[in-house]
Amino acid sequence: MDNNTLWWLAVPVVTSIVAIVFAGYLARWVLAKDTGTEKMREVSDAIFDGAQAFLSRQYRTIATLAVVAAIVIGILLAFLAGLSGGDVGGLSAGEFALRAAISFLFGALCSGVAGYIGMNVAVRSNIRVASAAQRGVGDALLVSFRGGAVTGFLVIALSLLGVTLVYIVFGALLPVGPGVNPAISTTTSIVGFGFGASFVALFAQLGGGIYTKAADVGADLVGKVEAGIPEDDPRNPAVIADLVGDNVGDCAGRGADIFESTAAENIGAMILGASVALFLAHNVAQNANPAWVIFPLVVVGLGIICSLIGTLVVRKSQAMEPANAGNRDPGDIAMGKMNQGYYVTSVLSAISIFVAAGLLLGGATDHWWILGLCGLVGIITSFAFVFLTQYYTAGSFRPVREIAEASKTGPATNIIAGLAVGFENTGLFVLVICGAIGLAYFLGSLIPGMGYVASNLISIGGIYGTAVATMGMLMSAGFVLAMDSFGPITDNAGGIVEMSGAPDSVRNITDALDGVGNTTKALTKGYGIGSAALAAFLLFSAYLDILNSNHVQGAYLVNLANPPIFIAALIGAMLIFLFSSLAIRAVGRAAQGMIEEVRRQFRADPGIMEGTSKPDYARCVSISTGAALRQMVLPGILAVGTPILVGIILGPLPAAGLLMVGTIAGIMMALVMNNGGGAWDNAKKYIEAGNLKDDKGNVLGKRSPAHEAAVVGDTVGDPFKDTAGPSLHIVIKLLSTITLVLAPLFIALHK
Amino acid sequence: MDNNTLWWLAVPVVTSIVAIVFAGYLARWVLAKDTGTEKMREVSDAIFDGAQAFLSRQYRTIATLAVVAAIVIGILLAFLAGLSGGDVGGLSAGEFALRAAISFLFGALCSGVAGYIGMNVAVRSNIRVASAAQRGVGDALLVSFRGGAVTGFLVIALSLLGVTLVYIVFGALLPVGPGVNPAISTTTSIVGFGFGASFVALFAQLGGGIYTKAADVGADLVGKVEAGIPEDDPRNPAVIADLVGDNVGDCAGRGADIFESTAAENIGAMILGASVALFLAHNVAQNANPAWVIFPLVVVGLGIICSLIGTLVVRKSQAMEPANAGNRDPGDIAMGKMNQGYYVTSVLSAISIFVAAGLLLGGATDHWWILGLCGLVGIITSFAFVFLTQYYTAGSFRPVREIAEASKTGPATNIIAGLAVGFENTGLFVLVICGAIGLAYFLGSLIPGMGYVASNLISIGGIYGTAVATMGMLMSAGFVLAMDSFGPITDNAGGIVEMSGAPDSVRNITDALDGVGNTTKALTKGYGIGSAALAAFLLFSAYLDILNSNHVQGAYLVNLANPPIFIAALIGAMLIFLFSSLAIRAVGRAAQGMIEEVRRQFRADPGIMEGTSKPDYARCVSISTGAALRQMVLPGILAVGTPILVGIILGPLPAAGLLMVGTIAGIMMALVMNNGGGAWDNAKKYIEAGNLKDDKGNVLGKRSPAHEAAVVGDTVGDPFKDTAGPSLHIVIKLLSTITLVLAPLFIALHK
Repeated sequence: MDNNTLWWLAVPVVTSIVAIVFAGYLARWVLAKDTGTEKMREVSDAIFDGAQAFLSRQYRTIATLAVVAAIVIGILLAFLAGLSGGDVGGLSAGEFALRAAISFLFGALCSGVAGYIGMNVAVRSNIRVASAAQRGVGDALLVSFRGGAVTGFLVIALSLLGVTLVYIVFGALLPVGPGVNPAISTTTSIVGFGFGASFVALFAQLGGGIYTKAADVGADLVGKVEAGIPEDDPRNPAVIADLVGDNVGDCAGRGADIFESTAAENIGAMILGASVALFLAHNVAQNANPAWVIFPLVVVGLGIICSLIGTLVVRKSQAMEPANAGNRDPGDIAMGKMNQGYYVTSVLSAISIFVAAGLLLGGATDHWWILGLCGLVGIITSFAFVFLTQYYTAGSFRPVREIAEASKTGPATNIIAGLAVGFENTGLFVLVICGAIGLAYFLGSLIPGMGYVASNLISIGGIYGTAVATMGMLMSAGFVLAMDSFGPITDNAGGIVEMSGAPDSVRNITDALDGVGNTTKALTKGYGIGSAALAAFLLFSAYLDILNSNHVQGAYLVNLANPPIFIAALIGAMLIFLFSSLAIRAVGRAAQGMIEEVRRQFRADPGIMEGTSKPDYARCVSISTGAALRQMVLPGILAVGTPILVGIILGPLPAAGLLMVGTIAGIMMALVMNNGGGAWDNAKKYIEAGNLKDDKGNVLGKRSPAHEAAVVGDTVGDPFKDTAGPSLHIVIKLLSTITLVLAPLFIALHK
Repeated sequence: MDNNTLWWLAVPVVTSIVAIVFAGYLARWVLAKDTGTEKMREVSDAIFDGAQAFLSRQYRTIATLAVVAAIVIGILLAFLAGLSGGDVGGLSAGEFALRAAISFLFGALCSGVAGYIGMNVAVRSNIRVASAAQRGVGDALLVSFRGGAVTGFLVIALSLLGVTLVYIVFGALLPVGPGVNPAISTTTSIVGFGFGASFVALFAQLGGGIYTKAADVGADLVGKVEAGIPEDDPRNPAVIADLVGDNVGDCAGRGADIFESTAAENIGAMILGASVALFLAHNVAQNANPAWVIFPLVVVGLGIICSLIGTLVVRKSQAMEPANAGNRDPGDIAMGKMNQGYYVTSVLSAISIFVAAGLLLGGATDHWWILGLCGLVGIITSFAFVFLTQYYTAGSFRPVREIAEASKTGPATNIIAGLAVGFENTGLFVLVICGAIGLAYFLGSLIPGMGYVASNLISIGGIYGTAVATMGMLMSAGFVLAMDSFGPITDNAGGIVEMSGAPDSVRNITDALDGVGNTTKALTKGYGIGSAALAAFLLFSAYLDILNSNHVQGAYLVNLANPPIFIAALIGAMLIFLFSSLAIRAVGRAAQGMIEEVRRQFRADPGIMEGTSKPDYARCVSISTGAALRQMVLPGILAVGTPILVGIILGPLPAAGLLMVGTIAGIMMALVMNNGGGAWDNAKKYIEAGNLKDDKGNVLGKRSPAHEAAVVGDTVGDPFKDTAGPSLHIVIKLLSTITLVLAPLFIALHK
C-alpha cells in the first residue's frame, strides 16, 4: 500500500475519536443538569432499573447467541479451508476461520457497547428533561437533543472506528504479490465485522420491538380500556414497562440498526472500491490504488464532523424564552431548530464530499468531481425520504386524512384505508430509490475509462457512483440518529412529568416535544429504509464481485429463469413474509402475558386502583423482558438460518437470488409496515386533535365512534411500525452480510 | 412439419369440439329443468336482467379498450418492423403487425365469448337449482354442478381451440428454411392470442371483483348494520346487485382467469418445446421435431376428456335420497360426490399423460416416461394446493381458530391475527411451488442429451420438465372450473329461495350447498395461484429464449446487481403493491355510491322497510355497474402500461427483471390476500356456528362482541379475497404476455 494514501486512514480514526470525546462531553453536560423533584426521581429510578434489567438480560442472551454463531462460523469456514487444501488466500485454515470469528465478535461487541452506553445516557436524560421543562422549552430541547446525540455519535464513531481497525489489522483488500490473492481472506474478515453488527442489531431491534409493543398494548388494553384510567397513570402496573419499552425499542434498537447500516455500507463500498482499483490497474497497467478503498471511510469520517457542527447549531435562542415565543407552538420552535441543524449538516457534507473526492481521488481520475455529484445525489435522496415520510405520516396531508375520514364508517373501513395507504406509499419511495440509484449510476458511468465490463454489462464507474451516493446519504447519520433518540427521551420525560403530578404548563412543553419526537422517529425510519435499500444494493454488487474474483462459472448469471435460482428467490420473498408474521405474532403473545399480570395485580390488591398501594412495576418489567427474549429467538433464527441453508444446499448463485429478491420484498414490506403504521397512529391523533367533522360540521373527537375505529387502526399499526417494520431493515442487511461472509463456503461446496 | 406429427393436432381440435358439444348438451339439460314458483321467477328475472346489464356494459367497455390496445400494438410493432428494415422473420412490416393485432383481438374475443355464454347459463341455472332444492339435495347438486360445468368446458375448450387455430393458421414455431427464422414472427402472433386473453381477463376480473364487493359491502353496511334486516332480505334495494355480483365476480371473473392460464401456459410450453426441438436438432443433427411443440396441446386436449368423464361421475346416488341420508350433512354428501369426480379426473389424467408422452415423444426420446413423471408431479401439486388452501381457510384447522380466538379481545387483535395468518400462509405454498418446480426440473434434466447449456447454465430438459408439470396440473382445469362456478350458482339459488319465502327445509339444502360452494371457490383460487406461478415461470423462460434467439447481448444476464435491472425489478414489486392499493380503494369508492343510494331509497320511500312497496333494484344495479367500470380503468392501465414503459425506456433485460420480481411479489401478495381473506371469512362463520367459547365455556355466538370483531375482519377480507387477490393472478400472467408480445420492439429499440 502506498504510504501517502495510507495516511488518509488517519481521517476516520481521528474523527471517530473526536466523536467519542464529543459524546463524552455531551454526556457530562447532560448529567450535570439537575434531577428535579423527589417524585420525579422515584419514577425515573424505576425506569432506569427496568431498562437496565432488560438490557442486561437481553445482552446476555445476545452474547450467548453471538458466541454460538461465532463458533459455527469458525467451524464452517475452517471446514471450507480444509476443502480448499488448507490454504485460503495465503492464510492457513485455522487463521482464516479465526480471523472471521474474531472480527464477528468484535463487530458484535462494538454494536453492543454503543447501544448500551447510549441507552444508559438516554435513560438518565429523561428526568433531566422533565426537570428542565419546568424552566421552559429551550432547556428541555437542549437536554433531550444532546442526550440523544450521545447515542448518535457513539454509534457512528464506534462503527467507523471498528471497520477501520479491522481493515488496518487484517490487511488490504488488494492483492499483495504474484500468485497470492488475499482478497477472499481479508474480505471475509472485514465482512465478519458487519455480520457481527447485523447479528446483534437483529436481536436488539427484534427483542426491543417486541418488548415495547407488548408493554404498550398490555398497558393500554387493561389500563385505558378495561380500567378506564388515563395513559401514563401511576396506578397502572404496566406503566413503567411501557416507558422502559420506548427506550429499548426506539433508542437501543434504532441505534443498532444505524450502526449496522454504517458498517455494512462502508464494507460494501470498500469491496467495490477494491474492484475499481483492480479494474483500473488491469486496464491502464498501473498499481492498484488503495484510494478507492479508503475513500468511503474518509467520507463517513468527514460526515461525523459535519454532524457534530450541525449538533452545535441546535442551541437555545432568545426566541425560545416564553416571553418572546408569542403564540408559536413550542414544538414548532424545537422542530425549526433541529431542521436548522440538519440543513447545516447537509450543506457541510456536500462541500466536504467534493473536497475529499478532489484530494483523495484527484490523483486517480480527473473526473473526481463526478463522484462529488454522486455524493450530492445521496444527500438529496435523504431529504426526499424525509419529505415523503412526512407526507405519508403527518396529519396535514391527504393519506392520514383519508384514513381519518374512513374511520367514520367504522374499524373495517379504517383498516382498509390504512392498508391501501401502506401499499400505496411504496410507489413514491421506490421511484426515489430508483432515481437515486439510476442517476448516481449514470453519472459514475460517464467517468472515462470506467465504462461497461463485457462479462456483466455493468459500468464499474457507475457502481462506484452508487456507492458514493450511499456514503453521501450516510454522512448525516450522526445527526439523524440524535434526532431519533430525542424521541424516546422526550416521551419518557412526558411520562415522568405526568406520573409525578407536575403542573399542566410543564406537561404542555413535554407534550409538544413528544409530538416532535414522533415526527423525528418516523423520519429516521424513512432514512433507515432508504439507507438499507442502497446498502443492500452495494452489498449484492460486492457479493457478485467476490463470486467473479473466485472464478465461479457464470458469476453474473443470477438468472431467475434458472429453476434453483428462482426457487431461492421465492424463498427469499417468502422469508420476509414469514418473518413479518412471526414478529407480529410475537407481540401478541408477549402482550398476552402482560395483560394477565396487570389483571392479576388489580384483582389481588384493590388498593392499587384506589391509589393507596403501589403496584408491582418490577414484576411487569420482568414478565415483558422474559416474553420478549423468548419470542425473539424463532424469527431471529429463521432470518439467520434460511440464507445459510439455501447457500449450502443450492449454491452461491441461488444464494444471490435469495438475497436480491428477499431485499426487494423486504424494502416493500418495511415501507408498508412503517408508514402504514405511522399513518394509522397519526390518523388517531388527527381525530383526537378535533380535526375530523361529520356532514353537519360537528367535531368527531375523543370517544366518538370514529375515534374508536381509529384506535383499532393504531393498535394494528403498533407491531407494524415498531416491531416488524424496523426489524425488516436489519433483515435486509443481514441477508447480505451472511451471504458475503459465507460466500467462500458456498463457492467451495458447489465447485 | 412432418405430416404424421401434424395429425396429432387433431387431438386438441377434436377434444375442444367434443367439449363444446358437451357444454351445449349440459346447457340444454339444465335449461330443460323447471323454473319453480312465480315468486322465484320474479327474483331470478331481476338477477338475470342485472347480470345482462352489467355484462353488456362491461364487455362494451372492454371491447373499446381492446380495440384501442390492438391498434397501439399494431402501430408499435409496425414501427419496430420499420426499424428492422421492413422485414421481420420473413414477414413484411404490415403483415407482422397485422397478425399480432388480429391474434390479440381473436384471443380477446374467445375469452369474452366463453365468459358471456358461461355466465348466461349460470344465471339461468340459479332458479332451476332453487326449484330443484324443493325435491332434495341430489337434484339441486346435479343442476348446479352441471350449470357450472357449462362455463368450465366452454372456457377450456375455447382457449385450447383458439391457441391451436392460431398455431395452425400462422405457421410453425420452427425455422422453415435456411436464412429465415420465422420464430420471432410466429411467436409474436401466437403470444398475441395470450395477451388478448390476459387483457380481457384483467378487466373482467377487476370490474367483476369491484362490482361484487361494492354491492356486498353496500348491502351489508346499510341493510344488516344500519337497518337491521337479514341478509338477502327483499326489502334491501341492494340485494339484487349483491346477487348479480356473485355471478359477475366469481363466475365470469374466474372463468376469464382460467381461460387465460390455459392459453398462457400452452403458449409458454410451446415456445419452450420449440427451443427443445431446435436444441436437439442442433446437437444430434436431426430435423427439428414438432412433437415437442404439439405435446402441450395434446395433453390439455386429453385433460378435457378426463375432466368430462369426471363430470359424468358426479351424479345422483341412492345415498342422496332424504330417506337414505341418515344424519349425514347434505353438504358433506355433495362435497364427497365432487371429490369423487376430481379423483377420477386426476387418475385418468395421470394415465393419459403417460400414454401421450409415449406415443408422441417416444420417437424423440427413449426417456419419455420421465416426462410422464413430470406430469404426475403437476397433478400431485394441484392436490397439495387444494389441501393447503383448505388448511388455511377451513374452520377445522389452527389458522381460522387462531383468528376466531383473537376476536375475543376485539377487532384490532382479529386484524393482527388475520394478517399474521395471511403472511404466514406464503410459507407452505411457496415450499410446494419450489418442490414442484425443483422436482420436475431435476427429473427433466436426467433425460440424456438434454443437459446443461453452457450459455445459461440451465438444463433444457429440466425446463421442459417444468412445462410438462404445468400441463399436468392444468389437465383437471375443466373439472375444477365446474366446481368453482357451482359456488355462485348455489349462492344465488339460496338468495332466490330466501327472497321468495320458500320453506326452511328448502333453505337448509341451499345453505348446505352454499357452504360447499365457499370451499370450492377457495380451492379454485388456490389452484389459480399455483397455475399462475408455474405459468409465469414458463413464460419468463420463454421470454429469455426469445431474447437469446434474437442475439441480445447477455440474454441470460438478468442480473439484479445491474442498476437498470434492479430499478426495473423494484418497479415490478412496487407495481404489485400499488395495484393492490388501487384495487382495494376502488371497492371502497364504489361501495360509497351504493351506500348513499340505499340510504336515499329508504329515506324517500318508508314503504320499502314496511314491505308495502318494492325498492328500485335496477337503480342499485346500475350504480354499481357504473362505479365498477369507472374504478377498474386506473389499476388496469397501470398494470398494462408499466411493463411497456419499462421495456421501451430501459430495454429487454430490465423488462425481464420487472417481469420476474413482479411475478414473485404478485404470488406472495395473492396468497396473502386470497387466503387471509378466506380465513377471516371463515373465522366469522366459525363463530356464527357457535364454536367459540369463553373461559367459562359459554358460547360466543352471533351478536357477541367477538362476532362483531370477526365481522370487521370479514369486511377487510372481502376486497382482499374477491377483488385484489384474484386480479393479481391475472396481472402476473399479463406481465408475461405483454413482455413476450413486445419483446421484438424492446430488442430493436435497445440494439
